[in-house]
Amino acid sequence: MFATRSFTLLCRRSAASTWRNKSQSAGKRLDISGIYPPIATPFTQSEDVDYQRLDDNLKKYCDLPFRGLVVVEVVKRVKQALPKDKLLLAGSGCESTRATIQMSQRMADACADCLLVATPCFYRGRMDSRALINHYTKVADSSSVPVVLYSVPANTGLELPVDAIIQLSQHPNIVGLKDSGGDITRIALLVQKTRSQDFQVLAGSAGFLVAAYAVGAVGGVCALANVLGQQVCDLAQLCVSGRWDEARELQYRLIEPNTAVTRQYGVPALKQSMEWFGYHGGVCRSPLQPLSKADLEQLQVKFSSNGWL
Amino acid sequence: MFATRSFTLLCRRSAASTWRNKSQSAGKRLDISGIYPPIATPFTQSEDVDYQRLDDNLKKYCDLPFRGLVVVEVVKRVKQALPKDKLLLAGSGCESTRATIQMSQRMADACADCLLVATPCFYRGRMDSRALINHYTKVADSSSVPVVLYSVPANTGLELPVDAIIQLSQHPNIVGLKDSGGDITRIALLVQKTRSQDFQVLAGSAGFLVAAYAVGAVGGVCALANVLGQQVCDLAQLCVSGRWDEARELQYRLIEPNTAVTRQYGVPALKQSMEWFGYHGGVCRSPLQPLSKADLEQLQVKFSSNGWL
Amino acid sequence: MFATRSFTLLCRRSAASTWRNKSQSAGKRLDISGIYPPIATPFTQSEDVDYQRLDDNLKKYCDLPFRGLVVVEVVKRVKQALPKDKLLLAGSGCESTRATIQMSQRMADACADCLLVATPCFYRGRMDSRALINHYTKVADSSSVPVVLYSVPANTGLELPVDAIIQLSQHPNIVGLKDSGGDITRIALLVQKTRSQDFQVLAGSAGFLVAAYAVGAVGGVCALANVLGQQVCDLAQLCVSGRWDEARELQYRLIEPNTAVTRQYGVPALKQSMEWFGYHGGVCRSPLQPLSKADLEQLQVKFSSNGWL
Amino acid sequence: MFATRSFTLLCRRSAASTWRNKSQSAGKRLDISGIYPPIATPFTQSEDVDYQRLDDNLKKYCDLPFRGLVVVEVVKRVKQALPKDKLLLAGSGCESTRATIQMSQRMADACADCLLVATPCFYRGRMDSRALINHYTKVADSSSVPVVLYSVPANTGLELPVDAIIQLSQHPNIVGLKDSGGDITRIALLVQKTRSQDFQVLAGSAGFLVAAYAVGAVGGVCALANVLGQQVCDLAQLCVSGRWDEARELQYRLIEPNTAVTRQYGVPALKQSMEWFGYHGGVCRSPLQPLSKADLEQLQVKFSSNGWL
Repeated sequence: MFATRSFTLLCRRSAASTWRNKSQSAGKRLDISGIYPPIATPFTQSEDVDYQRLDDNLKKYCDLPFRGLVVVEVVKRVKQALPKDKLLLAGSGCESTRATIQMSQRMADACADCLLVATPCFYRGRMDSRALINHYTKVADSSSVPVVLYSVPANTGLELPVDAIIQLSQHPNIVGLKDSGGDITRIALLVQKTRSQDFQVLAGSAGFLVAAYAVGAVGGVCALANVLGQQVCDLAQLCVSGRWDEARELQYRLIEPNTAVTRQYGVPALKQSMEWFGYHGGVCRSPLQPLSKADLEQLQVKFSSNGWL
Repeated sequence: MFATRSFTLLCRRSAASTWRNKSQSAGKRLDISGIYPPIATPFTQSEDVDYQRLDDNLKKYCDLPFRGLVVVEVVKRVKQALPKDKLLLAGSGCESTRATIQMSQRMADACADCLLVATPCFYRGRMDSRALINHYTKVADSSSVPVVLYSVPANTGLELPVDAIIQLSQHPNIVGLKDSGGDITRIALLVQKTRSQDFQVLAGSAGFLVAAYAVGAVGGVCALANVLGQQVCDLAQLCVSGRWDEARELQYRLIEPNTAVTRQYGVPALKQSMEWFGYHGGVCRSPLQPLSKADLEQLQVKFSSNGWL
Repeated sequence: MFATRSFTLLCRRSAASTWRNKSQSAGKRLDISGIYPPIATPFTQSEDVDYQRLDDNLKKYCDLPFRGLVVVEVVKRVKQALPKDKLLLAGSGCESTRATIQMSQRMADACADCLLVATPCFYRGRMDSRALINHYTKVADSSSVPVVLYSVPANTGLELPVDAIIQLSQHPNIVGLKDSGGDITRIALLVQKTRSQDFQVLAGSAGFLVAAYAVGAVGGVCALANVLGQQVCDLAQLCVSGRWDEARELQYRLIEPNTAVTRQYGVPALKQSMEWFGYHGGVCRSPLQPLSKADLEQLQVKFSSNGWL
Repeated sequence: MFATRSFTLLCRRSAASTWRNKSQSAGKRLDISGIYPPIATPFTQSEDVDYQRLDDNLKKYCDLPFRGLVVVEVVKRVKQALPKDKLLLAGSGCESTRATIQMSQRMADACADCLLVATPCFYRGRMDSRALINHYTKVADSSSVPVVLYSVPANTGLELPVDAIIQLSQHPNIVGLKDSGGDITRIALLVQKTRSQDFQVLAGSAGFLVAAYAVGAVGGVCALANVLGQQVCDLAQLCVSGRWDEARELQYRLIEPNTAVTRQYGVPALKQSMEWFGYHGGVCRSPLQPLSKADLEQLQVKFSSNGWL
């Protein structure tokens, strides 16, 4: 969404190593199961990227059992810091198909392993299944790395329709979906209807992670993992191991912190709470405002009352 | 909501056996865990209750492992047909507190075991936590039988706020909540925040039953149980037994039929599909319209493609 | 919506004087143009109707140039107090068609001149044009007095569709529409599409009265007219006389008071401000709560800053 | 929103001629009253700007009594074609304040007369009055040309709050508002509350233009003016002249075509209908899809049944 982006590092991926070749040879989709923090970029007071602090954060994140990281900027820098076994998912959704394809190409050139493509939404009244299937098909056709669909109605005012997802799940270069809407019935239905395609559904939030695993999701892209990364990974592991009673108890303690750093107080709260847990959150870029003193106190309570502070 | 109601049978409950006495002596809340169909009343062509067909349905429902039934009309008739170990939950929510109290009294006199009280909603702009806490407290204070809160935003355009539920969970005569909104994060939070009160959360739909159990709900009031009663009870039992993999598989097959008889095609679809499974659904009362031929075919596919027809 | 209603006075209208006869003989619809307050019923502390105070209010209202009054209760009492040249519109919308027909009959028996029939809404997901056309046609067919459609999405979560209104405008016993949604483009379209039918559109609020007149509405049912009745009538008169500049100036001064007694603070504010202007507002019935002190002060400012207090 | 933008022509405006100087010397705001089409850019089949066809359109638009044009791309080209007495309003809203300021600078350099700045919306949950006042103040402070606020909830899911607009109306470099929400009560209130500031409100659609003028708006930015430009200008002129009865009749005939080319069928319909009226609409860029045959027929009916085709 924001204008400045840097992804100048060119990947060693040759033009030949497209998804068409890979899927022909391997016959299997990229495994994206696991937990990803969509990393918050630290800025300096002048609103430029603070690379030193970014590197500090990355160093810590690399020690956690994340499956990978999600970035929308600074792809090159993150790629350099990331161990080879971690996936780098790069956000490349733009309003036009053409711009999305161009950004996807730049992201792939900067060695992103996978693209996370949010729905276009400015003309949401016209974004029916036909338009969205067309859009994603063109993007996936042209991309040299796999595509993950991304439905995030709280930000876009648009939910990627179930029938569009089912059809798109058949595309060999579309490997999964990040669903941030939190409608658990829908998530279960999507898993049911796409599993013959080896399609992978990721929860878009730590708030409903246990429920999502219970109905067949295989991971999550969780803002809260920027703050409580180990705990979110533990939660996923408990679900995968079938230890549901323990999972439920841990889930309870993560709901309020998660809501606080997402829907309730948003990015400013995420960045603030990162500071409390040893990461560099830094300032927010305008028009996002710092939290009021009252909100800050409430935020702290959401962590402390659940035993995290 | 509809005008004609019959509950003239007076219960043997004496004035002395109020919740105050019961809670003093027993020290424990009524256990409402389990599955309930909110029973659909069969009507004759002239839109009167068809008691013969109602009795036929009840006979069949009594053979299923339901915890009880939910009714909004015909309380007396249902009570007569119901074995003593089954609970009768009676809907008694009206727009004014006074009318709700009066209907609650009539329901209790007709031997309802418990009241299911939907939020008032006509003045939804003024229905904040203060107003709703006040409303439910007065209703619960005056009722001789326990009260279950009922939040159903699809019908009322209003969600009972989390803070109001937490406060109301402390009332000794309020034993639980039916939540039909389906926001699984909210349901988990409500379980966490009220479990010290022995407060019981019921899912308001079979569509998210596994997820609700996964985060601590103890049952469900499920329209689909009018049609696939045994299957919904099986699903609950699998969850209670911790057989989550089997539960997930069964859950998948119930989502489309459930959506079809609720949000998608509504009461006409519920009544139609009851006929397919040996129950009397009967006609709908105007302004509800019969399904179109195309909708009817779609409805059938939702059951047949999941192996139920 | 509330349970207690009294309309025992039987009108002298014989069964023969139905709309069919009238429309055959007269060939013209009832003229409903003008301003109506939907009168607020004063209650005693015990939440019973305070008839003495109601009569006091009615006496004052009868001195104002209203076209009539809208009532949902106490039809009999109001009819007795009302001069013969004023219209009594009685709310008779219920959830089922059958109950609506029955209440309409009782209202007509109590000498209502016209019925104001809100859309059923509990099953709003199924209330498409087909269902609503069917509902209103049955109600209008069976009613001995004319029917006014009533679309009030803020309370019902449902807007009566344009195509349904256009078709219903052709029914000889449906004379108009009260539209409270405030979508002025829709109101203009409705006037355009129904004017060949002599169908009359009333604004459902004083907040957009000038705009509604500007696009062809012929009156309004305005809660604010309970408080500033003369002013709302003046506003209508300025519009009818084509004195748009004066109308605009008066409109400005009514917007904030109107919003305050409707959407913002609701019925409690309406009743409170009635007291300031010499009427009996009285208490609200639970679950409506009295205004907080801060809200009360804000409410007063909305009137005083516009020169009314 | 779309990526490719060209505005390389540098305006002769010197750094000294900022709004601060101008407002000091002139003491009066830029008069923006009148009608503006937000011009649709024609593209070639390869989705590049079709400059020849753009010039053809501009030639025709320059013959109509528009006050100016609104552009979001191709500022330079439009400026060259535009007579000196016409205003060029350039869209420059981005998600971050920084990017908005940068684009505003580029637009001013390309000789835009005024900036039209839509609300940021990606983090709409955090875009309260405080954040938006801060955002617009920074943009207006730094801009060398006047700023027009732009509230367009259908596209952004966010309505610029009334209190924010009132406060921002006091900024000497913010001259008005384009309001596309269509809430006529809100528009009237905004006019009332800002007119001491010489603040100008423009309707964001031809669908409610008469109503907007009736409550004090001074013009409109109307997509329909791309197609029926003379008629929209006539409508405005009738309102300004106080010929309300004629205005109303013309308004009626514009509502359906307007809804068709905006909310109902969107940009593809706008471009298609431009072709019918002698302009070059051209293809839409993906993900926007061409109209289906059925939609196309419906679109034609909306024009023909109102006497325009």
